Amino acid sequence: MGKTELTGSFGAVELLGDASDFVDLILSIVDRITLFEDFSQEDIACLARRMRACRAGPGVELIREGESGDFMLLLLEGTLEIVKIDSRGLPQRLALVGAGKTLGEMSMIDGEPRFASCVTLEPTLFAVLDRESLAQVISDEPRIGVKILMELLMLLNQRLRAVSGDLMKCLENQRLRIR
Amino acid sequence: MGKTELTGSFGAVELLGDASDFVDLILSIVDRITLFEDFSQEDIACLARRMRACRAGPGVELIREGESGDFMLLLLEGTLEIVKIDSRGLPQRLALVGAGKTLGEMSMIDGEPRFASCVTLEPTLFAVLDRESLAQVISDEPRIGVKILMELLMLLNQRLRAVSGDLMKCLENQRLRIR
Repeated sequence: MGKTELTGSFGAVELLGDASDFVDLILSIVDRITLFEDFSQEDIACLARRMRACRAGPGVELIREGESGDFMLLLLEGTLEIVKIDSRGLPQRLALVGAGKTLGEMSMIDGEPRFASCVTLEPTLFAVLDRESLAQVISDEPRIGVKILMELLMLLNQRLRAVSGDLMKCLENQRLRIR
Repeated sequence: MGKTELTGSFGAVELLGDASDFVDLILSIVDRITLFEDFSQEDIACLARRMRACRAGPGVELIREGESGDFMLLLLEGTLEIVKIDSRGLPQRLALVGAGKTLGEMSMIDGEPRFASCVTLEPTLFAVLDRESLAQVISDEPRIGVKILMELLMLLNQRLRAVSGDLMKCLENQRLRIR
């Protein structure tokens, strides 16, 4: 498979073919991959065939806030910064994420604009799953399809609990301060 | 099927058997049921067989914050109040919800304690789906199982976007006020 260069917003993303060559790497960090809880080695190998492996240097915007997007990323090596523009137009860092984390699930699921941007801070290796590939997994391998849907549900659920808890605290602080 | 009385926390829940008798009612409000987007009449009838229909009077706490729970509710008639206790121990109303809304999905999915309480404000009719029934649907009717998982994903996704947006605004207000 040849090296294909896709020019990104602030750099370049190098496509490395499907993620089958990276199954060993995935297995070496599988404890950190919430998405693959309950996945067997065979499940991971099957899904890796439907994912594309990619490499990017530092400073590459892999996901841009407000743009439409139909894929999620599984970070295999490197660090990403998640940034969102506030109402004054200033970028606010929401989080730093490392290997094993998934990003961009929300837009993969609903096709709505990206909530925040993801920018690489160092040389980064990641695997991409897009909506079409997910739909194919569900129709060709329903057992694995159901597993990944369940894991995505657990993931969003966990995030929803955390964000809802933070919102409650923030609103309460606001109320106490207004008094 | 006889009337079974289950004593709830502040009242009683009357079990009406499986929800098959309520398919016409469900179809009459299906436009308001996000969970059943893309569901055919047959899909709904199939799922209704796995759900239990229940009735409760006003003032019944159907879900209690902090308790474990493995079911979600689909509200068919009536109004519920969603309440959460704040850090001072005072109940805060988070929302009022009407027919067509689903509640309690988070704990059905992850088995973690309930995030908030749901209390009936008037005579209420609802259908219950528990984790075991959902697992059965997935294994016996994978096509419908995948549909419901996808709808749950869309639902949580939508909520996560809304709550994340509210949190961003709240944190920004806090920052501006601290300056």
